[in-house]
Amino acid sequence: MSEPVVVDAMGGDHGPVETVAGAVAARRELGIPVVLVGRAGDIRAELDRHGAVAEIGVVHAEDVVPMTERGAGAFSSATTSLTVGCDLVRRGSASAFVSAGSTGAVVSCAIRGIGRATGVLRPALAIALPSVTGGATVLIDAGATSDPTPEMIAQFALLGVSYAQLVLGVADPSVGLLSIGSEPGKGNRLTRRAGELLPGLPLRFHGNVEGHDVLAGTVDVIVTDGFTGNVVLKNVEGSVRAALTLVARSGVAGPEELREVARRYDPETHGGAALLGLSGTVVVAHGSSRAATIARACAVAHDLAEGGVVTRFGDHLTAEPVR
Amino acid sequence: MSEPVVVDAMGGDHGPVETVAGAVAARRELGIPVVLVGRAGDIRAELDRHGAVAEIGVVHAEDVVPMTERGAGAFSSATTSLTVGCDLVRRGSASAFVSAGSTGAVVSCAIRGIGRATGVLRPALAIALPSVTGGATVLIDAGATSDPTPEMIAQFALLGVSYAQLVLGVADPSVGLLSIGSEPGKGNRLTRRAGELLPGLPLRFHGNVEGHDVLAGTVDVIVTDGFTGNVVLKNVEGSVRAALTLVARSGVAGPEELREVARRYDPETHGGAALLGLSGTVVVAHGSSRAATIARACAVAHDLAEGGVVTRFGDHLTAEPVR
Repeated sequence: MSEPVVVDAMGGDHGPVETVAGAVAARRELGIPVVLVGRAGDIRAELDRHGAVAEIGVVHAEDVVPMTERGAGAFSSATTSLTVGCDLVRRGSASAFVSAGSTGAVVSCAIRGIGRATGVLRPALAIALPSVTGGATVLIDAGATSDPTPEMIAQFALLGVSYAQLVLGVADPSVGLLSIGSEPGKGNRLTRRAGELLPGLPLRFHGNVEGHDVLAGTVDVIVTDGFTGNVVLKNVEGSVRAALTLVARSGVAGPEELREVARRYDPETHGGAALLGLSGTVVVAHGSSRAATIARACAVAHDLAEGGVVTRFGDHLTAEPVR
Repeated sequence: MSEPVVVDAMGGDHGPVETVAGAVAARRELGIPVVLVGRAGDIRAELDRHGAVAEIGVVHAEDVVPMTERGAGAFSSATTSLTVGCDLVRRGSASAFVSAGSTGAVVSCAIRGIGRATGVLRPALAIALPSVTGGATVLIDAGATSDPTPEMIAQFALLGVSYAQLVLGVADPSVGLLSIGSEPGKGNRLTRRAGELLPGLPLRFHGNVEGHDVLAGTVDVIVTDGFTGNVVLKNVEGSVRAALTLVARSGVAGPEELREVARRYDPETHGGAALLGLSGTVVVAHGSSRAATIARACAVAHDLAEGGVVTRFGDHLTAEPVR
């Protein structure tokens, strides 16, 4: 049996009520081994409500990183649920870490607390955005590494392919490089150089894609640097919200009728983001996650850890510049 | 009387029928001096239909840059309406150039054919995106300079402020720096350094903004590099389209009912893009522009040229690194 997924009981807008319920659902309904990290008293009280005290292990962490914390202050204490959770992964006592805490804080803690996998230059954040065609497109890097080299972007592409295979079940994912023109050679220096490396990798390279391709289903994986990726991720969210606000204001449809589209296209609601390239997998669920979403995040984390998203490309994921 | 605005008669999806009608409307209804550039025979035939042959000058240019041309091949001939139009601006025979041709081709021709204004390091493309609050936000650079220095980004901010004042009529525009966290110091290296320069400029600096602020009306001007700006511009377009497609598919509202929102939020339809920082102003109208849009683009070009968008900041727009 594999090591358990460690779930941050203190993260998210709804605290232990939903995170503990999510961990219980992951264990009972999906058969995923889990442990909970956070304030042991609070967690046991919730586990007791589910009659699950004997079923799920608890690791105590005294402090809580507030949801408003976006990175810099996440290390003010070594005994937060984030730092203790990441430490369990680093020591091999857990296969993966799931948190609905602030994305910035979780990513910062994970990079510092878990460390990179062998051969991986920098980690990347992957998120599956639903496309209008019905499938999904993996956006990577959505914000972990804001100043990557071209070689790092090439590795992100491999990590994105692995994610699409393991999580979305796409056998041979196509990969597009986010740029500002579809022709090869278009883009800034970083993107142009990455565009020279990608055709040499063992993946199905589609070529350049553009901003309007992100939700169009043009490719299975869109690779970019973490700065552009994070701007795009938040821009998708804001643009969809703006369009639906205008539709509601025009009187054509009410906010209630549009809620399903809004929910589907809130990118963070859909699937959470996976931090790939570390020695253990980390999945960041949305802050507003309820139990079912936490359970699903555990399943994604488990699949990624079991599938070996980081290591399965062997020689291609090398710390040497990709040729 | 100021020099005329030169209108590319051959650009756009509808050719001289709409561009000539637009030039006539600009002259007659808005009182803007214009000349037309392109195939003289075609243009005169259209002018004749409006009884305007004696009213509007024509400069002959034998060749036409196809709408599919995105930059590289735009110089295959020195006698296209783009190159001849830009040359009129360079020689001071026209105050500004308006084209509904391919954005990439127009920008390439304008940079090479007109040249930079004194003190301007690189040009930038400005576009006004309607925000949900009812106003508009200027996005600059939307794609002219894909690898700017921090000093160039600081100049783009000044150009964006000038654009917001002259075109949108905002007296003291607020400026946000597009980044991946609202706190100072968040972002990639380029953005962090630009964020150090902006507070020292004579503009109302709001601080960092994020991808979801682009349509939210958070600030009047959003400044970024031309790579990120172009990706964002096209992502807005694609995300709004995706949201409306899903609304239509859900049956809540039909495509016809959503057309007004779609049209409003097609960023290129709304206002066109202005290339700022050259020795003459260039406005790129959308390829699908009809006469009324061409006339409005002429008005924007005229306002920008008259207002001296490039020169009014005097010492602040210096070729020396901004301190």
